[in-house]
Amino acid sequence: MSSSFGALFRVTTWGESHGGGVGAVVDGCPARIPLTAEDIQVDLDRRRPGQSEIVTQRAEEDKCQILSGIFEGLTLGTPISLMVWNKDARPEAYREVETAFRPSHADYTYQAKYGIRNWQGGGRSSARETIGRVAAAAIAKKVLRKCLPEFEIVAYVKSVHRIEASVDPSEVKFTAVEESIIRCPDPDAAARMIDLIKTMRKEGNSVGGVIECVVRGVPPGLGEPVFDKLDADLAKAMLSLPATKGFDIGSGFAGTQLTGAEHNDVFEMRDGRVRTRTNFSGGIQGGISNGENIFFRVAFKPTATILRPQETVTTSGEPTELAVRGRHDPCVLPRAVPMVEAMAALVLCDHFLRQRAQSLT
Amino acid sequence: MSSSFGALFRVTTWGESHGGGVGAVVDGCPARIPLTAEDIQVDLDRRRPGQSEIVTQRAEEDKCQILSGIFEGLTLGTPISLMVWNKDARPEAYREVETAFRPSHADYTYQAKYGIRNWQGGGRSSARETIGRVAAAAIAKKVLRKCLPEFEIVAYVKSVHRIEASVDPSEVKFTAVEESIIRCPDPDAAARMIDLIKTMRKEGNSVGGVIECVVRGVPPGLGEPVFDKLDADLAKAMLSLPATKGFDIGSGFAGTQLTGAEHNDVFEMRDGRVRTRTNFSGGIQGGISNGENIFFRVAFKPTATILRPQETVTTSGEPTELAVRGRHDPCVLPRAVPMVEAMAALVLCDHFLRQRAQSLT
Amino acid sequence: MSSSFGALFRVTTWGESHGGGVGAVVDGCPARIPLTAEDIQVDLDRRRPGQSEIVTQRAEEDKCQILSGIFEGLTLGTPISLMVWNKDARPEAYREVETAFRPSHADYTYQAKYGIRNWQGGGRSSARETIGRVAAAAIAKKVLRKCLPEFEIVAYVKSVHRIEASVDPSEVKFTAVEESIIRCPDPDAAARMIDLIKTMRKEGNSVGGVIECVVRGVPPGLGEPVFDKLDADLAKAMLSLPATKGFDIGSGFAGTQLTGAEHNDVFEMRDGRVRTRTNFSGGIQGGISNGENIFFRVAFKPTATILRPQETVTTSGEPTELAVRGRHDPCVLPRAVPMVEAMAALVLCDHFLRQRAQSLT
Amino acid sequence: MSSSFGALFRVTTWGESHGGGVGAVVDGCPARIPLTAEDIQVDLDRRRPGQSEIVTQRAEEDKCQILSGIFEGLTLGTPISLMVWNKDARPEAYREVETAFRPSHADYTYQAKYGIRNWQGGGRSSARETIGRVAAAAIAKKVLRKCLPEFEIVAYVKSVHRIEASVDPSEVKFTAVEESIIRCPDPDAAARMIDLIKTMRKEGNSVGGVIECVVRGVPPGLGEPVFDKLDADLAKAMLSLPATKGFDIGSGFAGTQLTGAEHNDVFEMRDGRVRTRTNFSGGIQGGISNGENIFFRVAFKPTATILRPQETVTTSGEPTELAVRGRHDPCVLPRAVPMVEAMAALVLCDHFLRQRAQSLT
Repeated sequence: MSSSFGALFRVTTWGESHGGGVGAVVDGCPARIPLTAEDIQVDLDRRRPGQSEIVTQRAEEDKCQILSGIFEGLTLGTPISLMVWNKDARPEAYREVETAFRPSHADYTYQAKYGIRNWQGGGRSSARETIGRVAAAAIAKKVLRKCLPEFEIVAYVKSVHRIEASVDPSEVKFTAVEESIIRCPDPDAAARMIDLIKTMRKEGNSVGGVIECVVRGVPPGLGEPVFDKLDADLAKAMLSLPATKGFDIGSGFAGTQLTGAEHNDVFEMRDGRVRTRTNFSGGIQGGISNGENIFFRVAFKPTATILRPQETVTTSGEPTELAVRGRHDPCVLPRAVPMVEAMAALVLCDHFLRQRAQSLT
Repeated sequence: MSSSFGALFRVTTWGESHGGGVGAVVDGCPARIPLTAEDIQVDLDRRRPGQSEIVTQRAEEDKCQILSGIFEGLTLGTPISLMVWNKDARPEAYREVETAFRPSHADYTYQAKYGIRNWQGGGRSSARETIGRVAAAAIAKKVLRKCLPEFEIVAYVKSVHRIEASVDPSEVKFTAVEESIIRCPDPDAAARMIDLIKTMRKEGNSVGGVIECVVRGVPPGLGEPVFDKLDADLAKAMLSLPATKGFDIGSGFAGTQLTGAEHNDVFEMRDGRVRTRTNFSGGIQGGISNGENIFFRVAFKPTATILRPQETVTTSGEPTELAVRGRHDPCVLPRAVPMVEAMAALVLCDHFLRQRAQSLT
Repeated sequence: MSSSFGALFRVTTWGESHGGGVGAVVDGCPARIPLTAEDIQVDLDRRRPGQSEIVTQRAEEDKCQILSGIFEGLTLGTPISLMVWNKDARPEAYREVETAFRPSHADYTYQAKYGIRNWQGGGRSSARETIGRVAAAAIAKKVLRKCLPEFEIVAYVKSVHRIEASVDPSEVKFTAVEESIIRCPDPDAAARMIDLIKTMRKEGNSVGGVIECVVRGVPPGLGEPVFDKLDADLAKAMLSLPATKGFDIGSGFAGTQLTGAEHNDVFEMRDGRVRTRTNFSGGIQGGISNGENIFFRVAFKPTATILRPQETVTTSGEPTELAVRGRHDPCVLPRAVPMVEAMAALVLCDHFLRQRAQSLT
Repeated sequence: MSSSFGALFRVTTWGESHGGGVGAVVDGCPARIPLTAEDIQVDLDRRRPGQSEIVTQRAEEDKCQILSGIFEGLTLGTPISLMVWNKDARPEAYREVETAFRPSHADYTYQAKYGIRNWQGGGRSSARETIGRVAAAAIAKKVLRKCLPEFEIVAYVKSVHRIEASVDPSEVKFTAVEESIIRCPDPDAAARMIDLIKTMRKEGNSVGGVIECVVRGVPPGLGEPVFDKLDADLAKAMLSLPATKGFDIGSGFAGTQLTGAEHNDVFEMRDGRVRTRTNFSGGIQGGISNGENIFFRVAFKPTATILRPQETVTTSGEPTELAVRGRHDPCVLPRAVPMVEAMAALVLCDHFLRQRAQSLT
């Protein structure tokens, strides 16, 4: 069950970075949603390598094929199979990895778990796996936009290393995010982030950072009490992305330094409906959306692949030094922005359908 | 599906804080594990109200009954039904809440989702729901300890408001945690935390904080690639607890301020097996345990119930002022420690069984 | 997962025949459905021992308690916990079974699977487990009747041993079924069935038979292509009942003796909608309801408990002779009728909610 | 969830008969199982059109590609993506079906459920969907044979229309089945079945029949009490196949005409282990395998596609006459034999892994 996500809008991804290809099967998509390969390609292009000078220069075009589930431009209600062939795979670039474990990668844990691993490119732990998620989420977004006209997800780079952007989550626009190659809508911070990443690349080093995401236009009532809380499912979704180390929502970790009198979100009537005056809750109370903006942050560690010799051990337990070659991201953040959006869309689409099922009115 | 957790070791909780009782059904527990009600009561007593002067003074004894699944002191392999009757329910104390939404509680979102809510005591969003989790997790711990002799979970209060404890997660002992009523193993910080909570109670205010948890004795190989990563399932588990706002693991959010060269965990041979020299990964790499200590943090917001008049709206949309009475926790942290342990145990037991299923060797 | 059923309307049963009690948790029930313990008791009374002279004379009153999920007479949308205490348990009546395997019971297979079994009354394999199903299904029926005004399930005894009733599934009424203690609406066949069962009881022998069930008022579109076909889920539901050996739907096994030209159900317009002229399909085509009556049959083997000495082996592998005492059903059919209805209701309620989720119109 | 099957060995199929292709993703397969495309092709060839003169003459070669999950000839433990391109699709042959509902097909129910359907070749309800199941099951068989050396599944045609074969399920060999194009191991019955099918084809008519399946070498203890009984999951698996109308196991429907004294399977010691003298139970007691042969029967209706004019209605509700052209099976039985085996293998592999997970010894 490792490779499936969602209870009703259910995505199953497959594929290694250096096998034949990667893909996803989307089961449970409502029928008669207009869908073309172009709808999906837009987000894949935001995720793909080689899109700018600060990401990996691998030359994958990541063209998406729809193999099933569409008829005359509309979804059939049956599984939608999506696929991208692997093109620029260079297994020889990974030859050192065949017999040594890269620090802070999944080489060792895969070997320990399975007794075997596809050492060519990281196999299933490669960020290439997220192609299937981003493609599936493009469909989820179409469902959500059809049913919820004001629905909108905007994710952006909030910080890189110690450079923090100043962004108002309630105002930030998608177009402002896409204006910079680092996907940070604060132009000054963006410029400094880009400089830092270029420096890191030159030094064979890497950096991480924080992505913030805001979801607008979600009606009250999505999410379930107890285990499948909307924020719990978002947390799982985000921590399932490669390189993530943390998630917080609304006031988050910083909110632990406030008192209850400061932190409570007072209710009031506004725009003819129940609203909160502040939004420390981050749009979710008791695991259920309250109609305010949902916003959260995701921590990404510095990329594990660095172009410097590192100590490690071989698969047979001998100390060795490993110098990885190849084309890697000195910072995963700009390409991770569409991944964060994608996982948010998958969670929300699933809970939207769940609420339809249980709500009889 | 909201009320079930786990794929193989599966817990379903039920019950409102002011209905007949609360309980859980544990399905998938291996057979022939010795189990008595006392095994469960130990953890319930750490969770229950009235255990010290800094928690709510409700007089619930929370005595656990085992209704099925045990025969002559051993588990049968069939569902174990656990139940605690509600005793000290005082619905009249909640009468104000019948027609007004408490700020930063789930009153409004439940009403929006279901068109109905049990306003007596918060219903299903009450922390009382976690009784079923803690009881079920006591069983999970027995399974894990039987199969993994060095298995151990220690959670403790890391910070309250701005008071932060100094604790070494690799050394901290369960007994040191239990020595203070705040469950913080740093005696100096503990004393200051207790003082602060007493002050908050007097002022009708509340505080939150951070709980840190370390899990030792987990073998390499638990957790699944992609969606059901061990850290992703821990994140969901923690965010499913009431009042939580964040989760981070290993280096977490702080790790985003390091470079890759600083952050990577170098492999070495130690004690005859592959180890990492540092543990920024927090014991999980690529979603799979690597045999090091797993440690993570959970942010808890300040308790939403404060004993001060607050602005809000009524269920019919009129502005009103609400003054909640009753017996509440000015800080949920000391009682949340066993809840964090419980959710960690449920995640690990489930993944332990999953790994048994898939691993043929 | 063994003890849960349903994807959205999800029932988890628990309990042994001779433990503290038996029960069920219903998760996913829509909110604001009127529900009382009496709604549930009606069906439990049709299932309980001692209801007539041809069933077991155990004196269980099977009074149902609702422990959660209801507030002021309405469902809350949260888990509904249902429970019946065991009263007339006489473990000493099972003492012989402690060390010997009853032929065609689950004693041996439970021992082989778990290495332990509750030998007092058959434990989890007892028909007593179905109390939880029947109770949960009473709720499912309320949901279905609220949403589908013409919805109706009628099950009845079609045959006992070689006595076959003549019944028209499209006309048979619930009241006609309940008129006889054997629950066969053909009075002549019913009388002969009752005589046969009385004879069997005197002889310490037992008989089986076939239950037929018709479901009316199901709209077109319920059920899913491929694995979760409506008929596939009905088949699983029926074969999950104790003592069942077969399931067929519509023309069933007999239909294999027709040609396609005879068997095809021609479409025509009738009552302003698409109808089939014949109904060999049994109301389901391609796994999806077509709006016609759904009808199917379930084979029940002769009761395994017979009051005659039988050869068997002991738990340590020695040949022995076993003479079971106690109060048993010489024929399970009359009490199985509400169980068949119950499983049909659970399947249909689940698929009704699933269709609501996926259908956007 | 409609398109996924299995809790731990989980198969998700996708594809329409006339889209780009059909395929399956297998998640949860243990690592290090040797697997090649040829292992899969063997069973696909037994399922494919054009294999003999009595099946449809469509010219699909059904060549299977493995797109992921294999490395150097071994499974990786990660999802295995399998695919077959559609070749001989002739959508124009289905033009009549665009606006009229074929009797006893799924045209009407898909339209009612989804408001859209792929009318070219039946879309998702086509038997072509079973390619994914047969391919996935070839992997399941490899897992089972590796772990259970005596494991073996043999399915065969038991009857066609009124011609019934005489076969001893405990003795029948796979090679004897494959000797005739009808896959019936009774040569005399086989010859008559083939004659009948040829006659039916000439007459534009069709026939159905019964497939019997025996599974040998299953250890005691597989299957779960209550809902996921081994026979319940087999029933669902079989009724999920196209054109099926019934399932019975062991003594089945015929067993309802025996008394308990005749029907009970007496236990005895044989070959050093607990055995039953007779096998009316069909190898499963209380939902759990008892180590005897598992055998069951599946009813298949006469093929719905007949080459004769039939009354029906159009999609807009007008009466019409429909004469289907094209290349169809006058009897699905010979090609359904590998499908029945496939579904049996999927159920057993899943329960085998489930038992590994829960059994600690």
